[in-house]
Amino acid sequence: MMTSYACDLAAVCDAAARIAGVVHHTPVMTSETLDSRAGRRVFLKCENLQKVGAFKYRGASNAVRKLTVAQATRGVVTHSSGNHAQALALAARVRGIPAYIVMPKTAPAVKKAAVEGYGGIVTECEPNLAAREEAAAALVAKTGATLIPPFDHVDVIAGQGTAALELLEDVPDLDALVTPVGGGGLLAGCCIAAQGMKPTIRVFGAEPLGADDAARSKAKGEWQPQTAPNTIADGLLTSTGELTWPIIRDRVERVFTVSDDQIRAAMRFIWERMKLIVEPSGAVGVAVVLTDEFKAHADIGSVGIVISGGNVSLDKLYW
Amino acid sequence: MMTSYACDLAAVCDAAARIAGVVHHTPVMTSETLDSRAGRRVFLKCENLQKVGAFKYRGASNAVRKLTVAQATRGVVTHSSGNHAQALALAARVRGIPAYIVMPKTAPAVKKAAVEGYGGIVTECEPNLAAREEAAAALVAKTGATLIPPFDHVDVIAGQGTAALELLEDVPDLDALVTPVGGGGLLAGCCIAAQGMKPTIRVFGAEPLGADDAARSKAKGEWQPQTAPNTIADGLLTSTGELTWPIIRDRVERVFTVSDDQIRAAMRFIWERMKLIVEPSGAVGVAVVLTDEFKAHADIGSVGIVISGGNVSLDKLYW
Repeated sequence: MMTSYACDLAAVCDAAARIAGVVHHTPVMTSETLDSRAGRRVFLKCENLQKVGAFKYRGASNAVRKLTVAQATRGVVTHSSGNHAQALALAARVRGIPAYIVMPKTAPAVKKAAVEGYGGIVTECEPNLAAREEAAAALVAKTGATLIPPFDHVDVIAGQGTAALELLEDVPDLDALVTPVGGGGLLAGCCIAAQGMKPTIRVFGAEPLGADDAARSKAKGEWQPQTAPNTIADGLLTSTGELTWPIIRDRVERVFTVSDDQIRAAMRFIWERMKLIVEPSGAVGVAVVLTDEFKAHADIGSVGIVISGGNVSLDKLYW
Repeated sequence: MMTSYACDLAAVCDAAARIAGVVHHTPVMTSETLDSRAGRRVFLKCENLQKVGAFKYRGASNAVRKLTVAQATRGVVTHSSGNHAQALALAARVRGIPAYIVMPKTAPAVKKAAVEGYGGIVTECEPNLAAREEAAAALVAKTGATLIPPFDHVDVIAGQGTAALELLEDVPDLDALVTPVGGGGLLAGCCIAAQGMKPTIRVFGAEPLGADDAARSKAKGEWQPQTAPNTIADGLLTSTGELTWPIIRDRVERVFTVSDDQIRAAMRFIWERMKLIVEPSGAVGVAVVLTDEFKAHADIGSVGIVISGGNVSLDKLYW
C-alpha cells in the first residue's frame, strides 16, 4: 500500500540520484559517552553539517532540480523565516534561477541577511499565516514562479528522506531511527526511506512538549493541529501536513516528547562532548534517546538519530 | 639526515599502527565559504573531534602503549593542566594502568574534574614550573611510574605526527600544511610525517602574537624562550623544546603569527559556518590562512590545517 502515500522508496532513490554531488553526504558521528548514557549504540546523522546548516537543503534541492527548464526559468517561491528559506535560496542560486522568499517583517535581520546572502529575493509581509500565504500567492501570480512549501510537498519529502538513505548506507544494521518532527517532512521522508531499505527498522518521532501536535495526533489516531506553540525548538512549531501526517500515522511507531530543559541538556552535551554546534530543534532526537521512556525499549541495540540542523545565534548562551 | 632528529617517518608509521583503533581517524571538513575567503582549497583535519577533544590523545596513546609491561604496571606521570593531562589519563585508563597528574592548585576545578573523570590521580602543587617538576619527580621516585611530558618526547612527537599521516591519506594532493605551535610536538611530528609522505609539501606553523617564541626563533635562526605569554590561545603558551625545535628550525618553512582578534574571528567562523566547536588554540591555523600574508603565497593551491582541539568552557561567549 506504499503507493497510497505522497512518497515511496523509489522517489527517495530518485531524489538521491538527482541531488548527488549537490548536497553533502554528511558524516555519522558517535560518542562512547553517549552510548553509555543512552544504554545502546547511537549514531548521529549530522545534518547540521549539511549545506546551509540543515537537512532542508536536501528537499529544496530535489524540488528545484526536478523543475522543467520552463518552470525553472520563472523561479521558485516560498514563505518561511527558517532554514527552508535559506535552503531554497541556495538551491535556486545553484541552478541559476530566482528564489522569492516571503518573510514576516518581524523576522530577525540576521535571518533576512542569511537568505539574501544566498541570493534570495526577500518580500516582507505582516507576521501571520494569511498574510504570508497571500504574499506568496501574489508572487506566484506575478512571476509564474513555482511554490515550494517547506514540508508538505512530494519532492521535499522525498529529498529529506535521502538523509535516512545515506545513514543506512553507512550504518546498515540500525534497529531504530529517531528524527525530530515539526511539519513532518523529515520524519515522513526518512520513515519511507528507512523502512523501504530495511522493513524491520523501527521509526520514532521526537517532538518538544511545547509543540506536541504530532504526539497528540498519534495518541488520538487522528490529526490534531498545533496551536500556540511554546518551545526553544523554533524549527518544530508547525503542525504536520496533509501529505506527511498519513505516513506518520501509519508508519511511525510513536512520537516521544521532551521538555525544553531536556532539549537544552542534549544540546549542551552535543556541543561540549561531541564538539558539534546543534540548534535546539536538532537536539530533540538525542534528548528523546536519553529519556527513561526510550531507554525502556531494551530490544533496540542501535539507534540512528538525525541531527537536523545547527543554525543558532552565537551571541547568547543557551544554558 | 632525518636520523638526526627525534622522530622520522618510520616512527610515525609505527605510532599509527600502535594506536590504530584506539584513536579516532578524524574527519576532514571543507567549506566553500572558507575556500573562497582563503583564496584556495582548504582542508580541516578535525582533531577537535578526537577523543578527549584534542590531538594530544594521539601522542599520549602512543607513549602509553609503547611502554613495556613492567613499565606500564607502575603507571605514568605528567604535569599539565591542559589537554595532555586528560589525554594521558584516558590513555592510561584504556591500558588499565595508573596516571598520576600534577596540576597547579590554581587550575580550574572543571579541568581537575575532567582529568579525574578519565581516571587520573591528581596531585596539586604550587603554580610554578619548579614546583610542578619537583612534584612530578617525587611521584616518579615514589611509584616508579614513567614521566610522559606533553611534547618534548620522541613517542609523543611521533604520535602527534599521525594526524598528518591520516590527512595525507585522505587528501594526498595537498600543497601545504599548517598546524598550531606551542611546545611544537604537533608541528614537529606533522612536519616529519607530511614531508616523509610527500617531500614537496610546504609546512608552516601558526602561532598567537602573544606567545610568538617559535616565530621569533625561526626569524632569528636560533631558539628563543617564551616569557610572559599573553593570548586567548591558552594551549600555545609554552616554548618549543629540545627535540621539537631542531625539526621546526630545519624543516618548517615559516611560523606565521596572528592577533587574538584574528583568532577569535577564525574561531567564530568555524563555529558559525562549519558548526564545529574549536578552542582558540585550535583556530590559529585558520586565522593564519585568512591573513593577507598567507594569501600572498599564490602558488599554494590547497592547504591542510590541523584544528587541534575543541575544549572550551561553554559558560561564556568568546566575542
